[in-house]
Amino acid sequence: MTISNKALDLFVERIALIKSYEESLGLLYWDLRTGAPRKGMDVRSEAIGNLSGQMFKLATAPELGEWLSELEQSDTYEGLSEIHQRLVTETRKEYDRSVKIPPKLYQEYVVLTSQAESMWEEAKANSDFASFEPYLDKIITYTNQFIDLWGVKGTRYDTLLDMYEPGMTTAELDRVFGGLREKLVPLSAAIANSPHQPETGFLKQQYAKEAQKKFSLFILEQMGFDFTGGRLDESAHPFATGLNPGDVRITTRYLADDVTSALFGTIHECGHALYEQNISKDLIGTTLCTGTSMGIHESQSRFWENVIGRSMGFWKRYFGDLQQHFPNQLDVSVEDFYRATNVSQPSLIRIEADELTYNLHIIIRYEIEKQIFNEGVKASELPALWNAKYKEYLGIEPENDGEGVLQDVHWSGGSFGYFPSYSLGNMYAAQITDTLEREMPNFWELVESGNLIPIKEWLTDKVYQYGKLRTPSELITSITGKSLDPDYLFRYLEKKYTDIYKL
Amino acid sequence: MTISNKALDLFVERIALIKSYEESLGLLYWDLRTGAPRKGMDVRSEAIGNLSGQMFKLATAPELGEWLSELEQSDTYEGLSEIHQRLVTETRKEYDRSVKIPPKLYQEYVVLTSQAESMWEEAKANSDFASFEPYLDKIITYTNQFIDLWGVKGTRYDTLLDMYEPGMTTAELDRVFGGLREKLVPLSAAIANSPHQPETGFLKQQYAKEAQKKFSLFILEQMGFDFTGGRLDESAHPFATGLNPGDVRITTRYLADDVTSALFGTIHECGHALYEQNISKDLIGTTLCTGTSMGIHESQSRFWENVIGRSMGFWKRYFGDLQQHFPNQLDVSVEDFYRATNVSQPSLIRIEADELTYNLHIIIRYEIEKQIFNEGVKASELPALWNAKYKEYLGIEPENDGEGVLQDVHWSGGSFGYFPSYSLGNMYAAQITDTLEREMPNFWELVESGNLIPIKEWLTDKVYQYGKLRTPSELITSITGKSLDPDYLFRYLEKKYTDIYKL
Repeated sequence: MTISNKALDLFVERIALIKSYEESLGLLYWDLRTGAPRKGMDVRSEAIGNLSGQMFKLATAPELGEWLSELEQSDTYEGLSEIHQRLVTETRKEYDRSVKIPPKLYQEYVVLTSQAESMWEEAKANSDFASFEPYLDKIITYTNQFIDLWGVKGTRYDTLLDMYEPGMTTAELDRVFGGLREKLVPLSAAIANSPHQPETGFLKQQYAKEAQKKFSLFILEQMGFDFTGGRLDESAHPFATGLNPGDVRITTRYLADDVTSALFGTIHECGHALYEQNISKDLIGTTLCTGTSMGIHESQSRFWENVIGRSMGFWKRYFGDLQQHFPNQLDVSVEDFYRATNVSQPSLIRIEADELTYNLHIIIRYEIEKQIFNEGVKASELPALWNAKYKEYLGIEPENDGEGVLQDVHWSGGSFGYFPSYSLGNMYAAQITDTLEREMPNFWELVESGNLIPIKEWLTDKVYQYGKLRTPSELITSITGKSLDPDYLFRYLEKKYTDIYKL
Repeated sequence: MTISNKALDLFVERIALIKSYEESLGLLYWDLRTGAPRKGMDVRSEAIGNLSGQMFKLATAPELGEWLSELEQSDTYEGLSEIHQRLVTETRKEYDRSVKIPPKLYQEYVVLTSQAESMWEEAKANSDFASFEPYLDKIITYTNQFIDLWGVKGTRYDTLLDMYEPGMTTAELDRVFGGLREKLVPLSAAIANSPHQPETGFLKQQYAKEAQKKFSLFILEQMGFDFTGGRLDESAHPFATGLNPGDVRITTRYLADDVTSALFGTIHECGHALYEQNISKDLIGTTLCTGTSMGIHESQSRFWENVIGRSMGFWKRYFGDLQQHFPNQLDVSVEDFYRATNVSQPSLIRIEADELTYNLHIIIRYEIEKQIFNEGVKASELPALWNAKYKEYLGIEPENDGEGVLQDVHWSGGSFGYFPSYSLGNMYAAQITDTLEREMPNFWELVESGNLIPIKEWLTDKVYQYGKLRTPSELITSITGKSLDPDYLFRYLEKKYTDIYKL
């Protein structure tokens, strides 16, 4: 017992050290993206590389493996607290994954993806897939090597999915995405054919940045964002980063000719932030002190952005405030505003897609990634595959690869298996909302009266506090009593869009 | 030769790694002081502590000592580049200093000074020296232990001086501070007795922050501050930090009722920044890539703030611009403004002191520190000693210890030996100015015409580019052809104040 206590102390101390690196690197990245002077970026990148390397050494050191083995002895493990048990399980998983990759191979891969990201940027600007293809091809080859080293459970692609959504499988995604796609494709077509298309011109006028910023800050406050434990900045690509629960930072981007970008972007990132700000203090200093998966994280940003932020109830309460900020631009009814901000139409670019068709963009990427790793589809085949799927599911085709297969940065960085998280987030959000509506019968009254704090508290109780202490499937089952079911999302979208488009 | 090449590679790699930690920690501190959310600060401090500990391990590791020993072999050393030679010398010095302190002792000391800083803050607010005395006493005891471990050359206090001003000794400071004090005390008294006291009331009016900020940015640009390699922020205590030559950050503080605070503060910090921005690229990634000493660094901030920024020539050029920013407040002549911003009078608080009496504040601290370490003066004796010296040199006495011996944070953090740097900076600046005036005969014409860039370039050539590649005494000798001579400062002050106060 003395020995294992010592192993526990050393283990906990190492985890805290790793977490300190994560927090510091988080700040270095935040700084790079918000205001670091351009001239210092190369040297800063070196520093980031050096610190990351140090963290990797600490996270893959032989002694960590020994402490883990000691703590995994069944009688020792049984005596651990719930937090320490989960910390051992999580760390073992990460440890095994990391030590299986030879450092030299990993370093080659890091160099490759860093080159590939630059090449991708150029290729996208020139719509020149051919110049990017050899890089993508190599990244796929490396990723396949990693899959072999990590070991395959289920299908090869499952090994990748598990990194972003622990426990997620191709079989499960085939079920939920398949079910969703079948219903969304005809719904999207019906919407496109509806004669009742909302008027949106008034959204594209001049909206003064200062007023946008003021309104963003107001909405953050309404949502319960804690400004003593967070801040709002600007960046070209909005993001949220939880350095620790007392320091959660979000960014937004104000477009002078579009009021919706910063508005819904801010609400979205605040959803991420509320998650990170409300993780239990008990998890501070451990690697469990963050969201449990990309999908669950995205469920929170999308719950706040779409379920709340794009609802009629929300704007019944807040449209008057928004009008006061933009009296000349927003001389329309709340219904007009609601419909305009919920337009749905097939489009080519994922990040500009609406709440409904967005899922089809994701399903296309999912199907292609699955084919790459489970069926051996080659990089060279992707443009044709991409265009055919857009034609089939969205009824439109890119005119060039820049607005097609080259549009996303993910693959150039090797992030295969990441895309499904976005739609998983939508599905989790819809399923959780169903429970929320039942457990809190006055939910929509709260929204309509601008009383959002009880909603944040309900989510803290059910989701936020746990950080990584519960897995995504444990969470969704404990909250809703059921495993993931895509019908919640479909029914939510069907109801909303049937009303808006008078289907 | 192959072996030593390998040692060189490993050595250079380790130095780059240490520099990456320094840069990252620099950013973490900058963030804490400029805008980090309050709630996350405790966890952030843990992260800083953890990373500092990791850096210390790397900087004191046995293998570093072995590489150094190998590189110090005379035939190997002779074959090294100038940069690598200096890097070996500098690192050896730091290494020996660090490994001589037992880690446990150092850790105790870190805890002590961290407690002492909180206690000091409270003691200062309450003017309660008794509550701080036991902490100060312990810090002196620890510092004496460190001096014993480091080893004494010359006097015990020399060991401390060397940390901030390499090569500086008590004998040298006795000479220069003694000479200066003897002449400044009567000059200061003559000024106090002059009937020609400048009118200063107009400086203390309402000055809108936005206009102050605009003017600060304008002056930074005039001085050649590179905004693509730096930024200006706000903080309670203004500072400059050079993370790397491409990322140098300064802060200022805008007081609504005092136009001079931000104005001269910004020019001062920009002086530090110009130094850091213009270090040779060849030194990037090494620990030589920073100012060579506190004193030389301070010479640059004070050169720009005082020699340039508080000169009649500077305001002949820029007062019109300042008036345009504050037309209602500054309806005075440029002479009135020049005299008002150069008031000299004995005061109790160092950080509010003028260019002349400031040196007496420093000399008092120097004499007291010297007595503590070379004559065994006890913490309990300091308040009386302090008050007596203020009476003798400045003719005034604090009414309580809050505005006396407790006013500065330095001792609570154990920074004995640091204070002399400030006046060394003034002396270096005056001596360098003398050379500058001779080598650049149109110097004052350049200032009067707002053509400051050639001055920045001259200083880059003489000082900035070298970073730590030259020691303070090497620099001052190579630039001015003489060792440090306090008469330059005295003659500069005498001339300036004789004119202003019509002595």
